[in-house]
Amino acid sequence: MARFIKKRNQAIGKAPGSLIHIGKQKMDKSQIRLIQYNEQEFIEKEVELDSDFSALLDKNSTTWINIDGLHDLSLMNKVKNDFDIPALIMEDILNTDNRSKVIESRNHLVIILKVFFSENDNNVLQTEQISFILGDNYILTVQERIGDFFEPVRERIRNRSGKIRTRKADYLQYALVDTIIDSYLLNIEKIGSIIENQEEHVIKTDTKQLAETLYMQKTEMNFVRKSIRPVKEIILKLTKSEFSLIERETFNYWNDLEDLILQAIETFDLYYIMISDQINLYQTKISNRVNDVMKVLTIFASIFIPLTFIAGIYGTNFDNIPELHFKYGYFGMWGVMIMVAVIMLFYFKRKRWF
Amino acid sequence: MARFIKKRNQAIGKAPGSLIHIGKQKMDKSQIRLIQYNEQEFIEKEVELDSDFSALLDKNSTTWINIDGLHDLSLMNKVKNDFDIPALIMEDILNTDNRSKVIESRNHLVIILKVFFSENDNNVLQTEQISFILGDNYILTVQERIGDFFEPVRERIRNRSGKIRTRKADYLQYALVDTIIDSYLLNIEKIGSIIENQEEHVIKTDTKQLAETLYMQKTEMNFVRKSIRPVKEIILKLTKSEFSLIERETFNYWNDLEDLILQAIETFDLYYIMISDQINLYQTKISNRVNDVMKVLTIFASIFIPLTFIAGIYGTNFDNIPELHFKYGYFGMWGVMIMVAVIMLFYFKRKRWF
Amino acid sequence: MARFIKKRNQAIGKAPGSLIHIGKQKMDKSQIRLIQYNEQEFIEKEVELDSDFSALLDKNSTTWINIDGLHDLSLMNKVKNDFDIPALIMEDILNTDNRSKVIESRNHLVIILKVFFSENDNNVLQTEQISFILGDNYILTVQERIGDFFEPVRERIRNRSGKIRTRKADYLQYALVDTIIDSYLLNIEKIGSIIENQEEHVIKTDTKQLAETLYMQKTEMNFVRKSIRPVKEIILKLTKSEFSLIERETFNYWNDLEDLILQAIETFDLYYIMISDQINLYQTKISNRVNDVMKVLTIFASIFIPLTFIAGIYGTNFDNIPELHFKYGYFGMWGVMIMVAVIMLFYFKRKRWF
Amino acid sequence: MARFIKKRNQAIGKAPGSLIHIGKQKMDKSQIRLIQYNEQEFIEKEVELDSDFSALLDKNSTTWINIDGLHDLSLMNKVKNDFDIPALIMEDILNTDNRSKVIESRNHLVIILKVFFSENDNNVLQTEQISFILGDNYILTVQERIGDFFEPVRERIRNRSGKIRTRKADYLQYALVDTIIDSYLLNIEKIGSIIENQEEHVIKTDTKQLAETLYMQKTEMNFVRKSIRPVKEIILKLTKSEFSLIERETFNYWNDLEDLILQAIETFDLYYIMISDQINLYQTKISNRVNDVMKVLTIFASIFIPLTFIAGIYGTNFDNIPELHFKYGYFGMWGVMIMVAVIMLFYFKRKRWF
Amino acid sequence: MARFIKKRNQAIGKAPGSLIHIGKQKMDKSQIRLIQYNEQEFIEKEVELDSDFSALLDKNSTTWINIDGLHDLSLMNKVKNDFDIPALIMEDILNTDNRSKVIESRNHLVIILKVFFSENDNNVLQTEQISFILGDNYILTVQERIGDFFEPVRERIRNRSGKIRTRKADYLQYALVDTIIDSYLLNIEKIGSIIENQEEHVIKTDTKQLAETLYMQKTEMNFVRKSIRPVKEIILKLTKSEFSLIERETFNYWNDLEDLILQAIETFDLYYIMISDQINLYQTKISNRVNDVMKVLTIFASIFIPLTFIAGIYGTNFDNIPELHFKYGYFGMWGVMIMVAVIMLFYFKRKRWF
Repeated sequence: MARFIKKRNQAIGKAPGSLIHIGKQKMDKSQIRLIQYNEQEFIEKEVELDSDFSALLDKNSTTWINIDGLHDLSLMNKVKNDFDIPALIMEDILNTDNRSKVIESRNHLVIILKVFFSENDNNVLQTEQISFILGDNYILTVQERIGDFFEPVRERIRNRSGKIRTRKADYLQYALVDTIIDSYLLNIEKIGSIIENQEEHVIKTDTKQLAETLYMQKTEMNFVRKSIRPVKEIILKLTKSEFSLIERETFNYWNDLEDLILQAIETFDLYYIMISDQINLYQTKISNRVNDVMKVLTIFASIFIPLTFIAGIYGTNFDNIPELHFKYGYFGMWGVMIMVAVIMLFYFKRKRWF
Repeated sequence: MARFIKKRNQAIGKAPGSLIHIGKQKMDKSQIRLIQYNEQEFIEKEVELDSDFSALLDKNSTTWINIDGLHDLSLMNKVKNDFDIPALIMEDILNTDNRSKVIESRNHLVIILKVFFSENDNNVLQTEQISFILGDNYILTVQERIGDFFEPVRERIRNRSGKIRTRKADYLQYALVDTIIDSYLLNIEKIGSIIENQEEHVIKTDTKQLAETLYMQKTEMNFVRKSIRPVKEIILKLTKSEFSLIERETFNYWNDLEDLILQAIETFDLYYIMISDQINLYQTKISNRVNDVMKVLTIFASIFIPLTFIAGIYGTNFDNIPELHFKYGYFGMWGVMIMVAVIMLFYFKRKRWF
Repeated sequence: MARFIKKRNQAIGKAPGSLIHIGKQKMDKSQIRLIQYNEQEFIEKEVELDSDFSALLDKNSTTWINIDGLHDLSLMNKVKNDFDIPALIMEDILNTDNRSKVIESRNHLVIILKVFFSENDNNVLQTEQISFILGDNYILTVQERIGDFFEPVRERIRNRSGKIRTRKADYLQYALVDTIIDSYLLNIEKIGSIIENQEEHVIKTDTKQLAETLYMQKTEMNFVRKSIRPVKEIILKLTKSEFSLIERETFNYWNDLEDLILQAIETFDLYYIMISDQINLYQTKISNRVNDVMKVLTIFASIFIPLTFIAGIYGTNFDNIPELHFKYGYFGMWGVMIMVAVIMLFYFKRKRWF
Repeated sequence: MARFIKKRNQAIGKAPGSLIHIGKQKMDKSQIRLIQYNEQEFIEKEVELDSDFSALLDKNSTTWINIDGLHDLSLMNKVKNDFDIPALIMEDILNTDNRSKVIESRNHLVIILKVFFSENDNNVLQTEQISFILGDNYILTVQERIGDFFEPVRERIRNRSGKIRTRKADYLQYALVDTIIDSYLLNIEKIGSIIENQEEHVIKTDTKQLAETLYMQKTEMNFVRKSIRPVKEIILKLTKSEFSLIERETFNYWNDLEDLILQAIETFDLYYIMISDQINLYQTKISNRVNDVMKVLTIFASIFIPLTFIAGIYGTNFDNIPELHFKYGYFGMWGVMIMVAVIMLFYFKRKRWF
Repeated sequence: MARFIKKRNQAIGKAPGSLIHIGKQKMDKSQIRLIQYNEQEFIEKEVELDSDFSALLDKNSTTWINIDGLHDLSLMNKVKNDFDIPALIMEDILNTDNRSKVIESRNHLVIILKVFFSENDNNVLQTEQISFILGDNYILTVQERIGDFFEPVRERIRNRSGKIRTRKADYLQYALVDTIIDSYLLNIEKIGSIIENQEEHVIKTDTKQLAETLYMQKTEMNFVRKSIRPVKEIILKLTKSEFSLIERETFNYWNDLEDLILQAIETFDLYYIMISDQINLYQTKISNRVNDVMKVLTIFASIFIPLTFIAGIYGTNFDNIPELHFKYGYFGMWGVMIMVAVIMLFYFKRKRWF
């Protein structure tokens, strides 16, 4: 099965706005968590799947509803209706084979991003889609699985650290997206460490497995690149456009994120060039290796083949071979042989073959 | 014969607007199917080739006339006159070696696209050209052969699923184009599965056929790329410009398609890089293979050539070779030989040749 | 002599607007042909080189004067004066090592293009420069040699086919340029056929000549690319700018040409990638070939060198070699040899070397 | 540990504007140096870390406060408060894994750049971050370590050379950034000398170490490129935008810097292509070397293997080998052998193998 | 010493506008030549280095002062003061490691370009910097050495050829820059001839020196490219901007130069691709050569090694080898050997190895 594109058969020709979940179901039962705060108050609780969601909102507080698991179509339908989310947008949220994007509708500003994680601690990266639906002082986040990306933000809200409790939902949206971009940089740092550390290895060894490792790393990086690139556009759009749901003061923070994502992409590109160069170096080393093997063969063959020939001469059974009867004929042959060998070694030495 | 460009000899120097069919005739007799609907009513029927087409239109319904087969010039001429399509546009519709494009004339908005299909289930892709001529609440679709791309949309119309029955012809045009873009994604998914699945194969084997397979896949992908790229421009034009025939509400759907085609192109590019990397990996593996073969040769030759030389020495017929007459001379020779062999093996072991 | 750039020594430091013919003289004596038409009338005749050219024009007819051969500086000077063409433009027309371009002066709209032709039916392409000087309802075309590119347009004028007789000189200019772009597509089709057809050849063989053929085809394509690329800009300029000499209605035709040239360039690029891929495939095949040759050598050497060694052992003349006196010693040796050979074959088989 | 990206773990999910030092601590205790001048007066002194910084400013003089060492968060916090620097900007100054940038806030124009230096005179480049905070006629520079980049400017201030004493802080900022760009050019000159000088070496030798050297040089250059590229944007922004803190007259100087940075980048790119070409040349030389080694082997083997075969023939013990009993049989064999050898040599000579 | 970047040590941290000559001194004593003309009059003379330069100007004539040699700082300082040239511009004129550029100040329009020349007629290109300082109806040209680039223009002035005597200094500036661009085309023509002519050589031979030659040619071309590229921008700026010192009528000429420089760059790029392709072809040929050498070795070894083995068998000294005593045993062995050889040859023939 293709990892980099999801099965879409079921979606062909469906009416736009039909709620179809494209992707694998990654957990059993969806979970909903609510955080509600203003400068003074703070509530954190689980929400039943069949609650009246719109009743949860509170004019005087910022409300953050996080939904883990998006395969439950009836739940998603309820979300769509309770928060009055346009069908086309809801369709994008459910289709996990989506391009990262930002969409503005009449009452919402929706950001859809990818995050990376590796299951079982191997290096095969998976992506998950996270959607941030900003409404009028509330924010809905929808994830495919229970993730721990947002925990630091929850901590900040609980502990009143920074300005987060004094700001509205638009700032919360920024803070959450910020953790995602940070996670990109962490992933790039991880990839980068691997690549920088294997540099010495690439210089020293040239095993066949190394070729495969380098190639698979490059494939992973292509995959990461595809997911990160569109985010630049998104942040740019957020800093350039005037979205009514984002307050003026929050724009500075988005500007800051723009620099962060540029830094991420440029660092990523540096490592991408490095892995390509390592592949090239590997290939050069293989050529060098062939060269070395050839030299050993040539030196051995070029020295011993002539000597064997000489021995062959005196192994012939002709009646009349004068040298055979010389008293020191045998030792003379050895003399000639050693001379030939020395000359050959000299010749290869001068060619700097060893 | 060239597959990627069609014979144009006949078109050289012809007056613009001359109706010339460039391409191969892909079916015997053209067929015309009409679907007419509004929220209440629904008609679906075959239409005779010599009907008065303009009389088929109905002010209160959306009319969709689908023509399979465009080689019948007299029919095409009739279509041109009945619907008052400008000659230059009609020429483009008939020339199947055309670039995908969108054209606006006074009364029509015409979109010309390519679709892919593979005959006989081999992997050699063919393209067909489909034109969408949007008029005043009617749409004409012209295909080269009887295709089944539009069946899901027909189903939606028949079953009143989604909003299609409540919208006008501009929405129908969007819905039809949407099925084409979906078919691109399906094709990319197919290509992607092949490429991802053969990754392991590329890592494991290095047969000569693999080189040819990889190369032919790359050629197919170049072909697909050439057909898909212009579609991005087309969709962009449709979302950016204000076309009088497209209602405001339909624009959102085109925006959605823009994301879809971007996703298609970026996924395609990911696979394009993958196939290129696979070709590179293949080449690296071949170098490695040469290296391996060389090592086997060198090890065998470097061990046995000196040994043969030693045997040769004692095969000479000199009168006076003292060693020959030693009691254990023969076994001594074996001893020396085994020693030489062991030293050599040790040497190659230290060089990590095996 | 350089084929891709023309000798310019004579032009160094000359005053701008000096009439200098840069390029080779390609015919003996210049020829001038006049076609004059309106809806009713039609004249076609040869014109003497020393006629008063301006007197040939007719207010009520469109006049097309075609000049074959531009090496005759006195003729060119006469043309310049009779039609009041600015010196700088005339200089460009005479310099055949020019970039394709469009120039607007006060009374003229001049397009300078390249056409390809191959002499003697070999595949070495030559270019010729053709200039189209549009004036007030007349057009001057200047070619380096007698060419047959314009014959189809002459035919259309003679036969009143299409609208050509009802339109003015600006339409004629479009029609003539159209034949040139068509000729580009024809050339690309020719190149494309060659490249597509040799695909199988590249897959099957790997002769040395193939490398040279592929390389020379690539060089030809670079040459074609350099000539075609600027034409895109020219057509774009013609569709975007408002030139007073071009009527509104003619703009549509230029738009159509823009699509044609884009199609030409994209098809060309497809073939350019194909030829590059073929070169790569060729190189991969050579590596494979080296690999194959090595395998044959290694198999032969690795089997027979040990066997020869064994024979060598029993060819030694030691006094005391017990095996030599065994009754079936010789056959025992054969047995050992066959065993060694079988083991080796088995080993290579398992390595899938054959 | 990764050299090209700094550990960010601690920064994940922190509130924006939190002061966190990302990077290694490069010195023990921070140092602060003050220079204050106008046309007449000049003061230079060390400042205690706990002084009231804002009291140091003087309306009639330009004040330059240089801080070496940015790991001391309490000091940084004091700086932030005393000079009223926005928290987001202060965060960027402390994060040494930042992209070079220019930021304008209400009262400050901040430029953050990278400089290169190599520790212990090896060729492994390190970067340090330097921030230039321009306020109302004062400038704050913050470095990671005690550097000597600014000494020439200090000299100019002390010696009243040029216009520096007659201009304001915005000019001082330009002068300081200028020394940084100059240091880029110096580094490029150093890299360039190495690359140009090793050209002959690359042509003459093909040791394995050379491959590694070339590769590591390329990696260093990728690193430099990543740091220098964004500076172009920064300077461009400074020349294009209207910053209230920069006087009109100073703009010309920034324009000049733009040319300098362009020159730096283009020269850098030239060397980047050169190193890539050297790597290619190296690879070609390795192929040539393999070819040479093969030729030696082939010549030796192809001459002596047939000769050994001939000797082998006459070493057989058949009862009836007529040649053995010819009087000059042995010498005849030599004759044949020499003939064979001469023919082979001739053959290889004609193939131009030596 | 680096050829592609000049030593800048002395310039680090200098105040902007300091007059420092960066580059090598290329002649002993500077020389100044004056040409002054209008339609009627013409003066040409040497000027003393200590004259009052501003007194040389004449309101009714165009004055051209050419200075050869820019190492004489006191002279340059005098020029700066007499003509009131801003210090920053004068600094650029003296720094020969500058990027080509155009600068407008209040009273001057300065163009700084590079020219190529090769000393001693080898193919190693050198650059020289030439500055064109246009003032109010006078022009100052400053060269590093006595060059002969401008002689054709002097001739035109002396002979009143073209319009040069009727136009002002801005036209003269154009005419002089034109000779420089022409010299670029001449250089490209020279490079192009070399590359086109060696094509056959590259196809026929594969000596090691060729690799080095190709590589060094590519390096030279990189160098040329770096110098020519910025000129495109300069000319573009001259055609797009409105410079008060340039008269309307002169703009057309600059437009013409734009086409010329585009043609230069595109032709250059064509040759650049050609040299890269030649390098590729060379590498392919080397692979082919390795292949050929391998084939010769394999054919010889694969035929003679088995034969030697057979001979070895019958060279053994077993007591009981029946074949040895057959009457025609020896000839039988020959028979078998010839058979083996023929089979092998057949096998290689079928593999098309020769």
